[in-house]
Amino acid sequence: MSAKSADAPRPRAADPKKVHIADTVMTRYNWYKHVDWLNVFFILGIPFYGCVQALWVPLQFKTAVWAVIYYFFTGLGITAGYHRLWAHCSYSARLPLRIWLAAVGGGAVEGSIRWWARGHRAHHRYTDTDKDPYSVRKGLLYSHLGWMVMKQNPKRIGRTDITDLNEDPVVVWQHRNYIKVVVFMGLIMPMAVAGLGWGDWWGGFVYAGILRIFFVQQATFCVNSLAHWLGDQPFDDRNSPRDHVITALVTLGEGYHNFHHEFPSDYRNAIEWHQYDPTKWSIWIWKQLGLAYDLKQFRANEIEKGRVQQLQKKIDQKRAKLDWGTPLDQLPVMEWDDYVEQAQNGRGLIAIAGVVHDVTDFIKDHPGGKAMIKSGLGKDATAMFNGGIYYHSNGAHNLLSTMRVGVIRGGCEVEIWKRAQKEGVEYVRDGSG
Amino acid sequence: MSAKSADAPRPRAADPKKVHIADTVMTRYNWYKHVDWLNVFFILGIPFYGCVQALWVPLQFKTAVWAVIYYFFTGLGITAGYHRLWAHCSYSARLPLRIWLAAVGGGAVEGSIRWWARGHRAHHRYTDTDKDPYSVRKGLLYSHLGWMVMKQNPKRIGRTDITDLNEDPVVVWQHRNYIKVVVFMGLIMPMAVAGLGWGDWWGGFVYAGILRIFFVQQATFCVNSLAHWLGDQPFDDRNSPRDHVITALVTLGEGYHNFHHEFPSDYRNAIEWHQYDPTKWSIWIWKQLGLAYDLKQFRANEIEKGRVQQLQKKIDQKRAKLDWGTPLDQLPVMEWDDYVEQAQNGRGLIAIAGVVHDVTDFIKDHPGGKAMIKSGLGKDATAMFNGGIYYHSNGAHNLLSTMRVGVIRGGCEVEIWKRAQKEGVEYVRDGSG
Ligand code: HEM
Ligand code: HEM
Ligand SMILES: [Fe+2]
Ligand SMILES: [Fe+2]
Ligand SMILES: [Fe+2]
Ligand SMILES: [Fe+2]
Repeated sequence: MSAKSADAPRPRAADPKKVHIADTVMTRYNWYKHVDWLNVFFILGIPFYGCVQALWVPLQFKTAVWAVIYYFFTGLGITAGYHRLWAHCSYSARLPLRIWLAAVGGGAVEGSIRWWARGHRAHHRYTDTDKDPYSVRKGLLYSHLGWMVMKQNPKRIGRTDITDLNEDPVVVWQHRNYIKVVVFMGLIMPMAVAGLGWGDWWGGFVYAGILRIFFVQQATFCVNSLAHWLGDQPFDDRNSPRDHVITALVTLGEGYHNFHHEFPSDYRNAIEWHQYDPTKWSIWIWKQLGLAYDLKQFRANEIEKGRVQQLQKKIDQKRAKLDWGTPLDQLPVMEWDDYVEQAQNGRGLIAIAGVVHDVTDFIKDHPGGKAMIKSGLGKDATAMFNGGIYYHSNGAHNLLSTMRVGVIRGGCEVEIWKRAQKEGVEYVRDGSG
Repeated sequence: MSAKSADAPRPRAADPKKVHIADTVMTRYNWYKHVDWLNVFFILGIPFYGCVQALWVPLQFKTAVWAVIYYFFTGLGITAGYHRLWAHCSYSARLPLRIWLAAVGGGAVEGSIRWWARGHRAHHRYTDTDKDPYSVRKGLLYSHLGWMVMKQNPKRIGRTDITDLNEDPVVVWQHRNYIKVVVFMGLIMPMAVAGLGWGDWWGGFVYAGILRIFFVQQATFCVNSLAHWLGDQPFDDRNSPRDHVITALVTLGEGYHNFHHEFPSDYRNAIEWHQYDPTKWSIWIWKQLGLAYDLKQFRANEIEKGRVQQLQKKIDQKRAKLDWGTPLDQLPVMEWDDYVEQAQNGRGLIAIAGVVHDVTDFIKDHPGGKAMIKSGLGKDATAMFNGGIYYHSNGAHNLLSTMRVGVIRGGCEVEIWKRAQKEGVEYVRDGSG
C-alpha cells in the first residue's frame, strides 16, 4: 500500500523478544496503536478528500471517459500484471508489456509488485489459515481492507519463494522506485492527460486520479473478500474461494475464484467462452500482438475431473438425506410359505425380485389401480411388475424399495420351486396362483 | 378429433382377415387412402377457412380479448380436465367442475374425453413403442398431427383400462353427445358471447371460434411433439419425454413432461414454484373453492431419488470419458531400490503414497517450481506432497494419478525400512536422503 507496508513482511531490525502489537488484545486504550494510520490515510483518507473535492470540481464528459479508460488500464495492471503474470507466472510477457504493466499496476496504488505477489502467494499457499494475509475466516471486512488498515505481525504471514521476482529487473526497479511510480502513474499521469488534452487539470486530478484509485482499489479488494464469500464451488469446497459472475463483473474477470484457487497457474479465470474475463481476453490479445507468450492452461482432463468430483460430492450429500429403504442385508429372512400365509391373512404383502414389500397403505393410491396391485399380493410379482403387465418406471422401483420388509429365503418363487423339485420335496402351490 | 375417430380405437365390425390400410406400403397410387380426410378437414381445412375469412372480417378489440380468454378456458379443459383429471386421475373434481371441464374441453375440438384419455393412457403405458398412438419415434410431425391426419390401425394401439371413465356419467354423456358439444362449445358459444355481448357475431365465429380452435389444437399437440423432443431429462432418460420452459409456455404448463411421464399421477407438472404451470395453479384454486379435492403428489423422497439417480448417470458418463490414470491393480510392482536407482539414472520418478510416478515431462511445468519437484525425485515424497512442503490441491492429486507407472512392493519407504530392520536386513539409505 505504501512504501512502508511494501516492505512490511520483511522485518529488519525488529526485536524478536518484543511482542508485536497485533498479538496483543485490542482495548479502548490501545486500539489506535492497532491501526495502521498510514494505510488508513491511503485507502480511506485520500478517497474522502477526493469526494470532498468532487463537490467543487465539475465533472467534464471527456474527463469521465478518460477516468473510466484509466480505470481499466490500472485495473488490468493489477489483474493481468501483478496477479496473473507476476504472482502466478501463468504466462510470460516481453519487456515492453512488463514495463507497461508495472507502470499502470503502480498507478492502482496497491503496493509494489514484489510486496503484492509475495502476500498473494502466501494467500494461495495458506488459504484460510492464520498464515493467509487476508484470510476471509477473519471476517469479510477484514479480508476486504481490514488486513491493511489494521497492523499485522509480518512474522505470522506464511513464507513464500519469490526468487523469480527478484530476478526480474522490472519488478526490482518498480519496488525500489515505488513512491515515484505511485505519484507519477497514480496522479500526475491521469492529471496530465486531462490537463494537456482538454485543459481539465483539476478534473483529471480528482476524477481520473483520486476517485479512480479509490474505485480500482475497492474493485480489486473484492477478489479477497467477495470472491471468498459469494457464489458456487464447482471445483473444490475444501476452502472458501467461490465463483460468481457479480464478482467477475466487478474485478475484470477475477470472480471465477474457485477455479482460480484450484488451478492458479492457468492464465484464465473463466474457462467458458460466455463468462466475463476481460483480463484473459487482454492477455490473449497481447499474445496475438507478440507481447505475451507461453499462456498456461491446466489440462482440461484434470479440470473436468475436479468438476465431476465436486458434483459427486454434492450428489452424495443429497443421497444421504433421502430414504432408500432398508438395505437388503438388514432385512429379516422369510420363508416363502410364511409370506404366502401372511398375505392370505390380509397383510398387503407382495414379493418382487426375492424381496417382500408391505404395500398395505399403498394399494388405494396405486396409479395402476387397486385391482392390478391386489392381483400380485401373496404371489411372486416380479414379472408382472417388470413388464409382464406394466413396465414400471424408475420412480415406481424407488418407491417399492421404501416398502421392503423382508427377503425370501432362496430368492424368487421359481427358484424355490425348482429346488424343491430337485430335493424331492413336494411343493404346494397356492391355490389362487 | 371427430365422432368417427373418437370411436376409432374400438373396431366393431371390421373383418379380421382384411389387412388394414395403415399396414400396407404407401405408394403414389394409394397414398390418398392412407389419409384420414375427415381429420384433415377438422385440423387443417377449417383453420384454413378461418384464415381466409379473417381477410374480410375485422378483428375487434373486445373479440380479441374474448378469444384469448376462451383460448385459456378451452385449453384448461384439455390440460386440467382431459389430461390431469380424466386420463391420470391426479385429483378429484366435484360435479359442477366436471361438467365445466367436459364442456370447455369439448370446445377445444380434440375428440371426446373417453377417446382422448384411452389413447393417452396407451401413450403413457407404451411410450415410444409401436403401441404408443403418437410415438415421437415416428417423427416429430407424426407425433404432432401426423397420427391424426394419417390413418392408424386401431388394433396396433396398446390396450388400456378405462373402466373408471365408463363409470363417470359426465364422460359417458359427453362421449354420446360429442358432436353437439363440439358445435355448441366450439363455435356457437364463442360466437354468441361476442354477438350478444357487442354485436360481433362474425368476429366471434372466426376469431374466438375457428382460429381459437386452431391455436388450442396446435398448442396441445405440442405436448405430444415438442415435449418429447426439446429439453432436459432430469428424472429419467429411458424414454423421450423432456422438460422445457418453451413447451410449458405453449401448453399451459404441460412442458415439464419428463417429470410428468415419470410421475403421471402427480397433479403438478412443474414442481418448482418459479416454473410456469397455470394448469396446476388452476387446480389449486379450484381446491380452495371446494371444487377439487384429493390432489395427488408423488412423494418428494421418490422425486428427489429420481433426480439424484439421473444426475449420477450423467456424472458417470462424464467420468468414463476422462483419464483417471492406470488403476493401481494394473500397475507393475517395483522394488524400492529399483525405483531409487532409476531415478538416480535420470528418469524423473517420484514415489508418493507407495505409487511411483513419472513426472519427467512435468518438471518444467510444475507450478511450485522445478527445484521443489526435483527435490522429491528418487525419494518418498508422500509427506512433502501432502502438506510437508505444500498441501497440494485436489487438482494436483488428480494430475498426479495420470502419471502413475508402478507401485512399490511393500508400500512407502518407512514401512520398507521398518520391515528391513525387523527382518535383520541392513537397509542402505540413499546418500542424498
Ligand atoms: C404387482 C402388481 C402390479 C401391477 C400389475 C401394476 C400395474 C401397474 C400399471 C398397469 C400401471 C400403469 C398405470 C397407467 O398406465 O395408468 C402402474 C403404475 C404404477 N405402479 Fe404399479 N403395479 C403393480 C404393483 C406396483 C407396486 C408394488 C408399486 C409400488 C410400490 C407400483 C407402483 C406404481 C406406480 C408408482 C405407478 C405409476 C406410473 C409409473 O410411475 O410408472 N405398482 N402399475
Ligand atoms: C514432491 C515434491 C513436490 C513439491 C515439494 C511441490 C511443491 C509445490 C508447491 C510449493 C506448490 C505451490 C506453488 C505456489 O504456491 O505458487 C506446488 C504447486 C503445485 N504442485 Fe507441486 N510439488 C511437488 C510435487 C508435485 C508433483 C509430483 C505434482 C504433480 C504431478 C505437483 C503438482 C503441483 C500443482 C498442480 C501445483 C499447483 C497449485 C495447486 O494446484 O495446488 N507437485 N507444488
Ligand atoms: Fe483468493
Ligand atoms: Fe491468485
Ligand atoms: Fe407424453
Ligand atoms: Fe400424461
